[in-house]
Amino acid sequence: MTGDRSSEVQRALADVLPGTSLVVDPDVIEGYRADRATAVVPGRPVALVRAADSAEVQAAVRAAAHVGVPIVTRGLGTGLSGGSSAIDGCIVLSTERMRLLEVDRAAMVATVGPGLRNAEVKAAAADHGLWYPPDPSSFEICSIGGNLATNAGGLCCVKYGVTTDYVLGLEVVLADGRAVRLGGRTIKDVAGYDLKRLFVGSEGTLGIITEATLRLRPPPPPFATVVATFADVVDAGRAVVDVVGRVRPGALELMDRAAMAAVEQVRPSGLDLTAAALLLARTDGDPAEADLVLAACEAAGATYAARTHDADEGELLMGARRVAIPCVERQGTVLIEDVGVPVPRIPDLLAAVEATAARHATSIPVIGHAGDGNFHPLVTYDAADPDATARAHAAFDEVMASALALGGTVSGEHGIGVLKARHLRDQLGDDVMDLTRRIKAALDPDGILNPGKWV
Amino acid sequence: MTGDRSSEVQRALADVLPGTSLVVDPDVIEGYRADRATAVVPGRPVALVRAADSAEVQAAVRAAAHVGVPIVTRGLGTGLSGGSSAIDGCIVLSTERMRLLEVDRAAMVATVGPGLRNAEVKAAAADHGLWYPPDPSSFEICSIGGNLATNAGGLCCVKYGVTTDYVLGLEVVLADGRAVRLGGRTIKDVAGYDLKRLFVGSEGTLGIITEATLRLRPPPPPFATVVATFADVVDAGRAVVDVVGRVRPGALELMDRAAMAAVEQVRPSGLDLTAAALLLARTDGDPAEADLVLAACEAAGATYAARTHDADEGELLMGARRVAIPCVERQGTVLIEDVGVPVPRIPDLLAAVEATAARHATSIPVIGHAGDGNFHPLVTYDAADPDATARAHAAFDEVMASALALGGTVSGEHGIGVLKARHLRDQLGDDVMDLTRRIKAALDPDGILNPGKWV
Repeated sequence: MTGDRSSEVQRALADVLPGTSLVVDPDVIEGYRADRATAVVPGRPVALVRAADSAEVQAAVRAAAHVGVPIVTRGLGTGLSGGSSAIDGCIVLSTERMRLLEVDRAAMVATVGPGLRNAEVKAAAADHGLWYPPDPSSFEICSIGGNLATNAGGLCCVKYGVTTDYVLGLEVVLADGRAVRLGGRTIKDVAGYDLKRLFVGSEGTLGIITEATLRLRPPPPPFATVVATFADVVDAGRAVVDVVGRVRPGALELMDRAAMAAVEQVRPSGLDLTAAALLLARTDGDPAEADLVLAACEAAGATYAARTHDADEGELLMGARRVAIPCVERQGTVLIEDVGVPVPRIPDLLAAVEATAARHATSIPVIGHAGDGNFHPLVTYDAADPDATARAHAAFDEVMASALALGGTVSGEHGIGVLKARHLRDQLGDDVMDLTRRIKAALDPDGILNPGKWV
Repeated sequence: MTGDRSSEVQRALADVLPGTSLVVDPDVIEGYRADRATAVVPGRPVALVRAADSAEVQAAVRAAAHVGVPIVTRGLGTGLSGGSSAIDGCIVLSTERMRLLEVDRAAMVATVGPGLRNAEVKAAAADHGLWYPPDPSSFEICSIGGNLATNAGGLCCVKYGVTTDYVLGLEVVLADGRAVRLGGRTIKDVAGYDLKRLFVGSEGTLGIITEATLRLRPPPPPFATVVATFADVVDAGRAVVDVVGRVRPGALELMDRAAMAAVEQVRPSGLDLTAAALLLARTDGDPAEADLVLAACEAAGATYAARTHDADEGELLMGARRVAIPCVERQGTVLIEDVGVPVPRIPDLLAAVEATAARHATSIPVIGHAGDGNFHPLVTYDAADPDATARAHAAFDEVMASALALGGTVSGEHGIGVLKARHLRDQLGDDVMDLTRRIKAALDPDGILNPGKWV
């Protein structure tokens, strides 16, 4: 983009926004270009809007539409697929200052701004004796706005559902700058199309979520933790299939040896590195559930299996699982997979990932929300080595192809962003991509909102 | 429609469908004009297609598009809002013959055709030791296709969610006759827009659902039933607010005296007609939950409260609740409300309904899924009496206005259909109606699919 054009965009924004909300300093903008998809090279924005409220979002969108430049919305930049990665010449719209937070105890809802961290919503709910369940591993640093934009999952989602399951109402700024309210505080509401859920997970391509009303629950019940190790990762996968056929665990997580080793290097947690894989289950229903999980692990050939009702001990292990991605990232550049398969195909997927790693001589530590078939094989490589980079990209593609061949998905919870745009087409096919584009064209006819990534 | 035009439509269908699937006999068609919204006068179709499979649905849609007549899809005709009520000159498409039913125990899913009854899906799941929770009161006679089209709820939804929460995959025939597959068997899947959930609840206006993959759960836990009576319906509402703030009941239903009286006349169930309202709760978690519900009812001023762990006794009471709508229908023509409000506003809604009934001298028995704030005030009148009819319609409008004034919805689970088309606009407002029409135009540009009702 030429300097003149950049100045035009900046002037259009300056005409409608206060100086406190508009940033044109390139050094500051630099910090808002990328998300945490480290393999993605972000574009160069011409301006940053740190909107204070919905009205400023509306003003920014209208200005972007007027001058005809794209607008890329971001929360706190923890996305793993490049969904909020900047586009050349775009306006970056950060929602980090939009921090409304109201809990209505009687209605059991929280009304929140997109800039809040997930952990802040959880804490506010807890202050009122309530619980906001969705818990991406990054919950302490990721924003609710980003959670909504990607329909984020997490560990407890296997029992308690994902972000979209907690959305009762949204305020959304559309591509023409209008703000609409969808849904409200009513639990069941079938009046008209389920538009809320169309915006949730749309990665900023259909509208900009400026407020959400989230359903809260009574506090979580006390839990037991079951830990089991396996001599073969595929055995661990078989245990998962058996467990979820018997009980509804509150979490059921897997780490393979390479992932455990990465964690032990950064944050020693006593993980058994002689094991090929570790399963971590939480049960919070009938006390007998922990016994059933234990029995299923033993039946699948666990080399060790034990249970604890000590919450701190359980939390220590689950914490080790949560930090796995940043620990692996210390070993190289990481292409983060987010594949999902139907539960019975979990052993096949784990076997396929092992074969891919061997075939391409690439390290692929595996972690995952095993209970719902959602895995994060972490394709790790030295980005300074062109050959290793090529092998990593081939492995990355191959894992997604394996998931699709098993009837699965290329993304369970991280979103498509830039990283998986090509693979989305493989999954959806031409007709569904056409449907996708028709929806996009209906809501954003001029292609202002986060264009050119996957739609 | 002229006879020539009718013949043209019938010929176009006969060209592409076998004789076993096409019905032009007016006497047979007559039985497919209306659903169970008895206050709606249905239009006159020119043909009925009883499709055997997706390919025949595609053929029928293409023929409808070619000759330019609307197509109204119906399952088993138990809808309560006129959503599947025929339009003059339309083709009625019945999915009743599409009865695919496959349960995959390991994947914990059922793949079903839209013509199956909800009860058949439940039974097949149970045969495999699994559970399909959504349970509209009409579950023994309503179709899964209709459940999907309206995003049907039911009694256990307060804890276990509504139809859309169980949909993993759909096959949908679009307005241009293409069939697309959305989602699959993977539990978490954020690849692309949440198109599945756009079609669920769209009442046949965006596409025709020809197959669904539904998530199943482990069997329901044993339950206790709490029954409580109140001298004032508003007290019962206060008890509801208190109960759901403490526990997650597996069902929490309300009937007022008039509804109980209607049931007692048809199916004597020992209901206490001296009480103003009855609450029926199921608890299926921690055994202490029943005690908490009991205490909440007593604190709200229950005149009687007791609990039973006897499943048959509990089922008898819940069965009385389920038959309430047909029992009330024996007393006159019924305009069935389906309003929802945020839980804390339940007492206000119940008070407003009482006031409306008195103001318009109209009987309005009330039943409802109290735990999620979804109520069915049953505006009952003598359709042969023009003055009573006018008062009933005024009362019907007023109850919806009350719900909206309390931050609620005009439909919690029955859909908009014909009955609530005007009121939908009041709820959504111009901008969201515009969004709705843009989605409709993007997916059905020629307005073939169930047009002219509420979109």
